[in-house]
Amino acid sequence: MKKSLGANTLAQPTPVWLVGSYDAAGKPNIMTIAWGGICCSKPPCLTVSLRKERHTYPAILARGGFTISVPSQDLVRQADYAGMVSGANADKFAAAGLTAVKSELVDAPYVDECPLVIECRLFKTVDLGAHTQFVGEILDVKAEESVLGEDGHMDLELLRPLIYSPGASRYYAVGSVVAKGFSVGKEIGG
Amino acid sequence: MKKSLGANTLAQPTPVWLVGSYDAAGKPNIMTIAWGGICCSKPPCLTVSLRKERHTYPAILARGGFTISVPSQDLVRQADYAGMVSGANADKFAAAGLTAVKSELVDAPYVDECPLVIECRLFKTVDLGAHTQFVGEILDVKAEESVLGEDGHMDLELLRPLIYSPGASRYYAVGSVVAKGFSVGKEIGG
Repeated sequence: MKKSLGANTLAQPTPVWLVGSYDAAGKPNIMTIAWGGICCSKPPCLTVSLRKERHTYPAILARGGFTISVPSQDLVRQADYAGMVSGANADKFAAAGLTAVKSELVDAPYVDECPLVIECRLFKTVDLGAHTQFVGEILDVKAEESVLGEDGHMDLELLRPLIYSPGASRYYAVGSVVAKGFSVGKEIGG
Repeated sequence: MKKSLGANTLAQPTPVWLVGSYDAAGKPNIMTIAWGGICCSKPPCLTVSLRKERHTYPAILARGGFTISVPSQDLVRQADYAGMVSGANADKFAAAGLTAVKSELVDAPYVDECPLVIECRLFKTVDLGAHTQFVGEILDVKAEESVLGEDGHMDLELLRPLIYSPGASRYYAVGSVVAKGFSVGKEIGG
């Protein structure tokens, strides 16, 4: 029996991404978001949603780009911190003991300690209400070789990204492989 | 040492959602997507990206709404199948042994066997290139009581949603709780 939970943002699962930018003073900053995802294959784009009052909001508009750093499970404290505190009041890189690396492709920093980083040029903004979508065209994806499997692809059991669950506000680990895509469905058809 | 993987849609992790719609003939249909996420808190919205050539594309435009059904790990074959085969050529509900339930809030069906469903009114479309974003305003979220924990929130260890990993095209399970959000970060500050 299904129970109504109301008109809420309770979709599952959501990612945990650190959005990197330089603020007006040139200080590197990160903010943690769960409202985002891939949104287009060609051009390759992802989207992150920010409230207008966030310190990162004018930073992305001013510099025309941003980065996504995907923290591993070991960085859960840093990720949670970067989602609670504003870069207007803190040097989050310094406080969290993280290293800012200037992207060579966009005018934004990424987090060296994160095993996966994505460099994005601001492609489009879409105002939706409380949040504005920043659609970024992916210019490059960089991953630590240690998170690539023998097939050359990222292996989530090595990457160990965090999963965020809205509602409960809990971070989860990724478990083991359930199945190969475009494969097990053939047992039904296609 | 980070290795460049190029300008590709390799963000991690992504969700596995079944988008439900009625086609022009009134046939219930689902398609599986990983390009999507929550995108606004007020109004509560999520976004899914579809290619124009998909059978679901005109269906959502014609009926002005869609549903998201979140499959549990046990439905991985059905989810993989619904991402490979077009509703133009198959009755996917029948082939996959799934039950279509007509939403009372939007003109679209959801999958009864899925423990979490979200009913969305089409709020905005955003053409990005190969994909168009369908932004849906969430009118209700419905979950099986069996996936709610003692605190009333969804428990991902009970919901057991799938995680999709682009690149490797693998489905993963969700693991155990790593930390409570807006909590562990306080050890750093905030």
